[in-house]
Amino acid sequence: MVIIVKGSIHDRGVEDLLKWIEAKNIKVMVQEGVQKTIFGLIGDTTALDIDAIKSFSAVEDVKRIQEPYKKANRKMHMKDTVINVGGYKIGGGNFQIIAGPCSVESKEQICSIAKAVKKAGANLMRGGAFKPRTSPYAFQGLKAEGIEYLKEAKKITGMPIVTELMSLSDLDCFNDVDVIQVGARNMQNFSMLKELGKCNKPILLKRGLANTIEELLMSAEYIMAGGNDNVILCERGIRTFEQATRNTLDISAIPVLKEKTHLPIIVDPSHASGISSLVEPLALAAVAAGADGLIIEVHNNPSCALCDGAQSLDIPSFEKLAGKIFKVRECMLSFKNAL
Amino acid sequence: MVIIVKGSIHDRGVEDLLKWIEAKNIKVMVQEGVQKTIFGLIGDTTALDIDAIKSFSAVEDVKRIQEPYKKANRKMHMKDTVINVGGYKIGGGNFQIIAGPCSVESKEQICSIAKAVKKAGANLMRGGAFKPRTSPYAFQGLKAEGIEYLKEAKKITGMPIVTELMSLSDLDCFNDVDVIQVGARNMQNFSMLKELGKCNKPILLKRGLANTIEELLMSAEYIMAGGNDNVILCERGIRTFEQATRNTLDISAIPVLKEKTHLPIIVDPSHASGISSLVEPLALAAVAAGADGLIIEVHNNPSCALCDGAQSLDIPSFEKLAGKIFKVRECMLSFKNAL
Amino acid sequence: MVIIVKGSIHDRGVEDLLKWIEAKNIKVMVQEGVQKTIFGLIGDTTALDIDAIKSFSAVEDVKRIQEPYKKANRKMHMKDTVINVGGYKIGGGNFQIIAGPCSVESKEQICSIAKAVKKAGANLMRGGAFKPRTSPYAFQGLKAEGIEYLKEAKKITGMPIVTELMSLSDLDCFNDVDVIQVGARNMQNFSMLKELGKCNKPILLKRGLANTIEELLMSAEYIMAGGNDNVILCERGIRTFEQATRNTLDISAIPVLKEKTHLPIIVDPSHASGISSLVEPLALAAVAAGADGLIIEVHNNPSCALCDGAQSLDIPSFEKLAGKIFKVRECMLSFKNAL
Amino acid sequence: MVIIVKGSIHDRGVEDLLKWIEAKNIKVMVQEGVQKTIFGLIGDTTALDIDAIKSFSAVEDVKRIQEPYKKANRKMHMKDTVINVGGYKIGGGNFQIIAGPCSVESKEQICSIAKAVKKAGANLMRGGAFKPRTSPYAFQGLKAEGIEYLKEAKKITGMPIVTELMSLSDLDCFNDVDVIQVGARNMQNFSMLKELGKCNKPILLKRGLANTIEELLMSAEYIMAGGNDNVILCERGIRTFEQATRNTLDISAIPVLKEKTHLPIIVDPSHASGISSLVEPLALAAVAAGADGLIIEVHNNPSCALCDGAQSLDIPSFEKLAGKIFKVRECMLSFKNAL
Repeated sequence: MVIIVKGSIHDRGVEDLLKWIEAKNIKVMVQEGVQKTIFGLIGDTTALDIDAIKSFSAVEDVKRIQEPYKKANRKMHMKDTVINVGGYKIGGGNFQIIAGPCSVESKEQICSIAKAVKKAGANLMRGGAFKPRTSPYAFQGLKAEGIEYLKEAKKITGMPIVTELMSLSDLDCFNDVDVIQVGARNMQNFSMLKELGKCNKPILLKRGLANTIEELLMSAEYIMAGGNDNVILCERGIRTFEQATRNTLDISAIPVLKEKTHLPIIVDPSHASGISSLVEPLALAAVAAGADGLIIEVHNNPSCALCDGAQSLDIPSFEKLAGKIFKVRECMLSFKNAL
Repeated sequence: MVIIVKGSIHDRGVEDLLKWIEAKNIKVMVQEGVQKTIFGLIGDTTALDIDAIKSFSAVEDVKRIQEPYKKANRKMHMKDTVINVGGYKIGGGNFQIIAGPCSVESKEQICSIAKAVKKAGANLMRGGAFKPRTSPYAFQGLKAEGIEYLKEAKKITGMPIVTELMSLSDLDCFNDVDVIQVGARNMQNFSMLKELGKCNKPILLKRGLANTIEELLMSAEYIMAGGNDNVILCERGIRTFEQATRNTLDISAIPVLKEKTHLPIIVDPSHASGISSLVEPLALAAVAAGADGLIIEVHNNPSCALCDGAQSLDIPSFEKLAGKIFKVRECMLSFKNAL
Repeated sequence: MVIIVKGSIHDRGVEDLLKWIEAKNIKVMVQEGVQKTIFGLIGDTTALDIDAIKSFSAVEDVKRIQEPYKKANRKMHMKDTVINVGGYKIGGGNFQIIAGPCSVESKEQICSIAKAVKKAGANLMRGGAFKPRTSPYAFQGLKAEGIEYLKEAKKITGMPIVTELMSLSDLDCFNDVDVIQVGARNMQNFSMLKELGKCNKPILLKRGLANTIEELLMSAEYIMAGGNDNVILCERGIRTFEQATRNTLDISAIPVLKEKTHLPIIVDPSHASGISSLVEPLALAAVAAGADGLIIEVHNNPSCALCDGAQSLDIPSFEKLAGKIFKVRECMLSFKNAL
Repeated sequence: MVIIVKGSIHDRGVEDLLKWIEAKNIKVMVQEGVQKTIFGLIGDTTALDIDAIKSFSAVEDVKRIQEPYKKANRKMHMKDTVINVGGYKIGGGNFQIIAGPCSVESKEQICSIAKAVKKAGANLMRGGAFKPRTSPYAFQGLKAEGIEYLKEAKKITGMPIVTELMSLSDLDCFNDVDVIQVGARNMQNFSMLKELGKCNKPILLKRGLANTIEELLMSAEYIMAGGNDNVILCERGIRTFEQATRNTLDISAIPVLKEKTHLPIIVDPSHASGISSLVEPLALAAVAAGADGLIIEVHNNPSCALCDGAQSLDIPSFEKLAGKIFKVRECMLSFKNAL
């Protein structure tokens, strides 16, 4: 951490700051200039509160050098983390497609979609039982009943279940769920993150619509600090001024995250765009940018979907897309092998 | 709602859509053009799922005309809602300052600050007991103990307590809290909103960093749909590309909300800017733009604050500011009286 | 266009609006509701000023249905536009790489880079002679001299020149330039766009940092309305709250533009990210998303580049990248051929 | 400037960087850590190209400490700049209202509006002759004829003229214009800024929709570096995800700019909101936040305005607003006098 300080080291306020930092067992290297002094902090500054430092009146600016996350940091853990979900691996060169409807609507619906997407190449199944909806008057999901239907579909297909948790009070229903999804709107629901740090299931952590890549990693750090290292990150679009798509897929987040963290990163092209015709180009782009997986909405009859039908693929479209995804993936692997 | 449909009314897909809508007891007026048909929907379209409509392949675009919120809508409830907190009124011409530290740190701290801000003109006291922090390694608040100290401060000063709820599992601690704050990061924690709809305490609902004004009203609608009409809206800055301030205070949200809803709207200039020297100009601007109140961070010793010291005012600065706030407020009232 | 009107058709203000529209030879279909009336406008509404309509006090809202651009609109011109630059085609299934340094620094530099990138597979050469720099104290380019050096490099390699025009007063220097680039900051320099509409050279139009896809198309429309149909669109990142990359590449813009327009669309991964290690993943993603070309910064010695060295590739990296680009491109073409 | 360097000072790449900087007569203080070295640069780093530094492979990050602008910097020029426009002063405690129509439509129109707004308290007159319009099919202004009408209105009322320049080729028409406006879309038209640096007229520089406060100051610096110190800054809203208003007025920009620069700052509440009912609250907020002036659109008949009628006030509304503006301004001055 570098702190820019107004005035000289002999000023009262500057001395106070120096003592305050040193009391935290952090060594400070001081560079004195004419009107400004620069403090270079050496040691573990992760727990140093940047806001507390800024509140000293002598401080003009503070620049963090060390990242504020440790367990999620690639510098501390060079090797890619591989998450094993019921035998299917994600990360470290392993790629998976997670597919299924936005909402679980009936046992028949989820079972037939699961069978179809498995046949097309998806190994994990998604489906919303507890649904976050902007309007209190919209369909809120089948809840516990929806989880039961997902379990039926798992029994038939052997596909692990990925589904969203909206409230810790529903956690009891998630015993047979394989991957617990934290939705974009709950990315900074710190109470939930802390609690999920205590379980040992993989967590699919979606990036919030207005959250930076660093904040996504800090939320992963919350889960990991609690003892659960099985975090899968998910880029699903951020909110910008552009209105032609529901959100703007931040494709750069994939390579940026690959540099900063060892955790696997998957992409949700369905929620990112909100438009089914954009799912294919965004999915292929994500693979080409190095994603470890995709989570795609598929519905047997999109125009009857109880939510988000506009962004769901029908089964024939998903089959075609899966074929292309695997081709682009092969192409990417051929680059690695050529090294 | 207006739906733009590709093709003619005699096409199969268009007919299907028409039947689907009419089955929901909504009357459709049809305007046929050459390549497009326009459907005008008449009736209560609040519960109509815009995404479901978009998923029909015949649909080119859907434009909502009626707002998707009812209870929060000024059209349904012309008169300003007045929220009464322990005898102090907010809204409908009533203005209040809520002041106090970011975090409750000790009994002495909160009591001394409460006394000071009350003397300066604040009628309600704020102070964080459960603190949402981006880093798991940062100070997380005194929790239940913090609530106890707030109650002590209330006993001494008579000031109602405004404090943030981070998890429904902590709700038991909030029995003596007067206003429950829903933080920006929980604005779309729908499980929490639903539960708060069942209590009868005033809720201070902060706008999320990436949430639109309409989404803020939809979150208020969640609380109101549950039966609790006591919602105070709070603008506290949105996330933009500008980095000179922590967030960008959306000052226009005040008059826009005044047109769209009857609920009171207050402003948090401390979190909006993140810089104490900006609190005064933003606070005065908010009053001039018509806000019903302000929530301001004040600390007895900002450079020792355990969080957000950089944006806290010290007590002498708050006293001066409060004087100016009341002067600008008087000026605004003189305009009303002149009508 | 659909206009939502307050009140009934018999109200004075509503009648005035109706007459005003009909005076423009546009037919209006009227749907009367209880409190609102809906006008459906039939005919060419491109020239209708949406702001003028909104200024009628009876108007509650206006929703455009028809796009405000005609010549750039795919609906009016289904077939992909192919731009021929000195024998090299862009669009309609033709893909090109444009490569070269951010700034032209010397004859030797541009000639050696041109030879190297041509050998690696780039067919067009880029290089800035007139440089837009945020600071008046930064290197502003070699100007006319830089253009001369580009011409030398063209003589040697046969590569057409792509370079940026910053002011109409420099247009005389551009006689031998093959593609005139309009930079992101000039995307809405309407005087420049109008003038370029009068020339018959291909124009590379970069999307502004805060401009929507629709505005990009409106700027293309300015050039085309003047008579020059040779417009190549370029996505180069938009400004968002995310700070890990210089800009956020809007990868979705590629498929969205493919639907809306017949003009070719290329991507600039160098400016989008500002970081050389991100150029490869973003370039490959752009190809997978369907881009018609790429414009990439390459330097013989990036750490001595006079501007934007941080985002430039060195020549060996570019060679490797070009190979991968052509592989992903082949993969994409195999999908087309499989249809 | 602080540079974070990977590795030790004895590494080849680090040494190269050190020599490169020292060759520019900048002294470097070196702090060696375990894995990183910190360079503190002492001297005038304004002309140092941050991108050039980032392109050295040893560099991990660069943090600017000194602002990149000099002439616009309050640190170099503590006293407020006062701009004198035909006897009317702006800045340094002097406040002015600039009012008039979006577009000049006829001699009668501009003269009658000018008389009315002057009577109401505006001292300067605005009116667009050259109009930047998103669509090539929209009204583009009366151009030179419009300037003639503005001059007529000036003759009658004595009000100085503020009007926008869209192209340097039109500069000859601006001899009798008192303040040349650079529109938001041209804020980074560096060729134009350089040319305006050579004239001695006051320049009204509007902030671009996606430009930071620092970039606004860098554009002012372009003009000042050319020798023209008469720059008035104008905040007119930035582009964000919020769609309820055309742009989001960045009210915080006023106090931030007051700290960073000595130049006067005015606010345009009409373009910021795009909605006439929001002009009053935003105008009053701007005054309360410390603006040195306002530029407001006024029309004799907003529903017939050839552009932007939706955001124009009619004359009675402007008269009422002007009265309120002066009251809030008085209130603000009373605070200053009380010091």
